[in-house]
Formats: sequence, C-alpha cells, structure tokens
Amino acid sequence: MNIYDVSERAGVSIATVSRVLNGNPNVSEKTRSRVMEVMNELGYTPNVFARGLGLNTMRTIGIMCSDSSDPYLANAIYYLERELRANGYDSILCCTGTSLENKRQYFDLLLSKRVDAVILAGSKFIEMEEKDNAYLIDAARDLPIMLVNGFLDAPGIYSTVCDDHSAIYHAAARLIASGRKRILYLYTSRSYSGTNKLQGYKDALRDGGLPIRPELIHQCAKDLHAARSLLLSLAAEGLEFDAVMTSDDSLAVGAVKYAHARNISIPEELAIIGYNNSMLSYCTDPEISSIDTKVEELCITTVKTLMGVFGGGDVPGKTTIAADFIQKQTTNF
Amino acid sequence: MNIYDVSERAGVSIATVSRVLNGNPNVSEKTRSRVMEVMNELGYTPNVFARGLGLNTMRTIGIMCSDSSDPYLANAIYYLERELRANGYDSILCCTGTSLENKRQYFDLLLSKRVDAVILAGSKFIEMEEKDNAYLIDAARDLPIMLVNGFLDAPGIYSTVCDDHSAIYHAAARLIASGRKRILYLYTSRSYSGTNKLQGYKDALRDGGLPIRPELIHQCAKDLHAARSLLLSLAAEGLEFDAVMTSDDSLAVGAVKYAHARNISIPEELAIIGYNNSMLSYCTDPEISSIDTKVEELCITTVKTLMGVFGGGDVPGKTTIAADFIQKQTTNF
Repeated sequence: MNIYDVSERAGVSIATVSRVLNGNPNVSEKTRSRVMEVMNELGYTPNVFARGLGLNTMRTIGIMCSDSSDPYLANAIYYLERELRANGYDSILCCTGTSLENKRQYFDLLLSKRVDAVILAGSKFIEMEEKDNAYLIDAARDLPIMLVNGFLDAPGIYSTVCDDHSAIYHAAARLIASGRKRILYLYTSRSYSGTNKLQGYKDALRDGGLPIRPELIHQCAKDLHAARSLLLSLAAEGLEFDAVMTSDDSLAVGAVKYAHARNISIPEELAIIGYNNSMLSYCTDPEISSIDTKVEELCITTVKTLMGVFGGGDVPGKTTIAADFIQKQTTNF
Repeated sequence: MNIYDVSERAGVSIATVSRVLNGNPNVSEKTRSRVMEVMNELGYTPNVFARGLGLNTMRTIGIMCSDSSDPYLANAIYYLERELRANGYDSILCCTGTSLENKRQYFDLLLSKRVDAVILAGSKFIEMEEKDNAYLIDAARDLPIMLVNGFLDAPGIYSTVCDDHSAIYHAAARLIASGRKRILYLYTSRSYSGTNKLQGYKDALRDGGLPIRPELIHQCAKDLHAARSLLLSLAAEGLEFDAVMTSDDSLAVGAVKYAHARNISIPEELAIIGYNNSMLSYCTDPEISSIDTKVEELCITTVKTLMGVFGGGDVPGKTTIAADFIQKQTTNF
C-alpha cells in the first residue's frame, strides 16, 4: 500500500496526492475529498519510505533539546546539525525547557512543519509515567523519532544510548578496588540516563561487598555552588566520605571547591569523578577525572540510523555505545 | 511600489503573485511570465513589508553561528530561539564553521529555504576585506540581516552590539588605578569584536600614561591549556607582568592555571580578568572576575529590532548595549 496505489485509484497524479498530504491549498475541494476518500478506503498512512523516495519531503529534521545552553546538549546540537547537513538535511531546532506541556507543544509544532523526523536530544524527553509518552508512540507511526541517550521501546522509535550503567559501574568498581569505602553519589535527575547511572553505582557497591547507604546518595541542582554547599553542610553534620561520584561535571567542580574550602587533599583524602568529560572538568586545579560519554559518536550513529530508516533498511531499535573513563588528577588509579 | 501594484497591473490576485514569488508550481506558465514581466517593468523587488503582512512568509528565521558548542554562542542560540518562538517564528539553525566559503554556502542555503530574515550570531561573520562582505550587503536588499555583536553599515543590515571597547577600557583603567603597571593582553581573534577589545586595552593604557608594549600583547588559540603554556613560556623568557586581561574566559582559566603552576598568588601578585562571564569563570579557585557581555539582552534586542523591521517601523541600524564588570576573586578593586 503506497502513494502510487492512492494515485492510481483516485485517478490523480502522485504530485496531487503529495499536495493533499502536505495541505497545499492549490488542490480543488473536489480532488481533495476524492483523495482523502481513497486513502480511507485503502487504509493508507503516509509513511517514511515515501519520504525517503523524495515524495512528500521537506528534507528537514526537527531537533528538540531541553536546554541548548547546557554544555553536553550544546555539543550534541552541533554534531547533529553537522551530520544532518552532510546528508543534505536541514534542521529546525526547538529548545523546549523541561515541562511536559511545553515539550508536547513544541513537538506538535514540528509535526505541523511536516519535518521528516524528530530527534530528541538528551534523556529529558522520556517521562516516568507511561501515559505521558503516548504522544511520542502515536507520532512514531507517521515519522521516525530518534532518541539521543533516551530509550522507549515502540515501533518507529530508534534509540542511540551511551552505556551509562557500565560507565558508572566500572568507575565505582575502580574506586572500591583502590580502597575507597565511603563513596558519596550526587545526581541531578532521575531521567532515563540518571536512573541507569544510579543503578550502576548501587550494583558496583553490591558487587564490591560494600553496603548501599542512603545517607551517601543525594540529589542536587545542576549547579557547582549548590554542590559545594551541599557537601559542606553534609560534612558539617558529620557525614564521612572518601570519594565523590557525580552524574554531571558541574557537581564534580563543586566537589573540588568543597575540598579546597576544607583543605582536603585531592585525590589522597578525597577522590572525585565527574561525568561527560566537558570543558568544565578541565578548568579546575586539579583537573577532574571524568567519563567521556562519546556525544559525537552518539550523534553520528543517530543520523546514520535515521538515514538507514529513510532508506528502508533493516535498522536496530536500540544501539548502545560504550563510554570511556578519562583519568586526570582527581583519582589515583 | 508593492505587491498590490504588481497584482493590479498583471490582472491577477495577490495570492498568485505570492505564489510566483514562492516558486509554487501551481501557477500556469502563461501567468508566471506575465507576473515576472510586470515585476521587471515596475522594477519590483519583494520586500520585507510584504513578509510582515503575512504574504510570502514561512515565519521562519535562519540563524547562523560559527560554533554552537562555544559557551557564549550556545547561550545566544538559546535566547534567540526563545525570543523568536515567543513572537511566533521558528528558527533554522546552521553551524557554519569559520571558513568564508562555508559561511557563504550556508547563507545561500538559508535564502533558498525562503527564510524571512537571517540572524548572524557572533562577530565571526564580518570579514576584514570589504569585498568579502558584499554577499551580505547584496542579500540585505531582499531580506533583513541581523548581526548579534557584529557591525556592517548597509541598508537592511541591523546590528546589536555589546560595547566591548568600553568594557575592556574601563576594566583596564581600574587595573591601572589599582597600581598595575605591566598588563598582559591575550586575545583569540581579530574579529569586529576582537578589534574593539584590543583598541579598548590600548586606549586605556594611553589614557593611563602607560606605554603600549607589543611584547605584552599576544594572540592565543581559544584553549585553556594553550593559554597556560603560552604564559609559562613567556615567563620563562623573562617577561614580567602583574595582570592578565583576556578576550575570552577560557584564556583567563589558563592564566589561573599558570599562576598555580608557578605558585604565584592571585590577585596580589597577578590580577586576572576574563571575558563573557561564562560558567568557566566560576569553575576555578579563585573564581575569575569577568565581563558580563549581556548576551541575553543582546538577543532580546535583536529579535525586538527584527519585529520592528517586519512591522515597518523606524528602526535603528545599530543598537549598543553596555557590559558589566563582575568582580570576583582574581582582582582586588
């Protein structure tokens, strides 16, 4: 069932069917109803292969990100745009913020622009409540939805994820092997990615024979001064810890500042591990050991997968990429 | 002379003229030639007011930036996108890199998408050679071109700039007033903005009665480790300096690292001033005094000016916004 069948049955050209699909006003009301009638009869849904054939396509991809000023997402936008351009596609960028209502509104706006696909950059787009993801699952029947570091198991949704669980698991295991006993864990959110990271931490402790202590696990705003203050107040309350792991480099910068404020030597008395290996992790003295989440590779793979979908090839619903541990000066492995 | 005149003289509707302008295929060859003929006779050029009336508009603005992963430009994109959206416009983002050839190619691509205006974010789009800017001046006859922190004096080009000269001038004057005699200046590029900053430094020295020493002025890659190495090698050659001013926070981070490496006390023995007041300037210990270039205000003003142009109002060709000096821990004023 495709656009050719509709065109033949309706007795109009493919271009006319395409015009009806695109909502082009230059189609008579009579022709439009005829085409719509045939589509209903045949149960036709415009599909991604038609787009791949250059029919009904604007060669434009919508990109959504929750915050383009975040260093990780800023890099992702840069790489996605570059890869799409190299494949002859333009991109329309929407910075959505984090509220579900805004995300849905921007998503609808991209659909109304008749983009060929939507890329959701970052793990903030998958909601904890299943019903809140229904709008993505519905839309994926009509156009491919690509998740960069998020996962949703549904037809038409393609995920490229970094193996955050392994990354944190192996870093924590190295801390434990080097003798650290009280590893504090700071995280910013319980997104898809955030949940995997936290689980990696817990699994490493369990496998390393250490207890999982709730008093060592804390949520913190993604802000270096907030992280510094939180650690200072935890220490003032008598909490002891010999390592800090974080879900984001900004929190690790706060941990370095905490150690400086208390004259604690890094890494001897306190080991610190960041996440994302962003520019922030290079600004401090000592520079922060961090996890390179391969954002460039994630973006290249996302666009390659999308081109595979447009080409009608056999494309995996989920691709996982391994992270790298970047040893700098806040760990002594 | 406007679209109404063309429609009247050609004996077709305004919608038909608009269709011809948009290259819509649903116009007969006969009608198209008639409309084109009349446009030639009348010397008609589609103008921004027609777009403002909702004729011939996609309500889409092209944004070009040289590098979306740069923290300053990443923020600019975020604010521009937000402001455009609030005014009902979508944006198409192109990350161009810095070669003139690529910039021109992306610019043509945006024009071919029939965007309603192009915003050039950052000062990397104005070339030193006048002839290399001709393509912008030509294009500005057909659609508004907005420069964020760049300046080009031509009809249809609207600039919103931060007063970089004053910002550096006043910061340098404060260093001189506080007794600094040998102020090193590190800069990344001789763009429009870069040239103004350097001139601000020179003018402050001159007005403060200090000689302008070429050995104290150095270009450096926008990389904190490059800045650190450069300062270490200059010091090894015997160069003396009691303050470092920079055209970008990343270089100031390198200056902090240089001081740490040599056990130089900040700010007593060495004062350091960054530029842009980005997140980087908050990561170091001590945190870096820097210049807030008001990127949010610049972007709000740019979009406001653009809406003024679309509305046909009287709009200034250049708007200047003052920067703020943010005193932190690397200066002792």
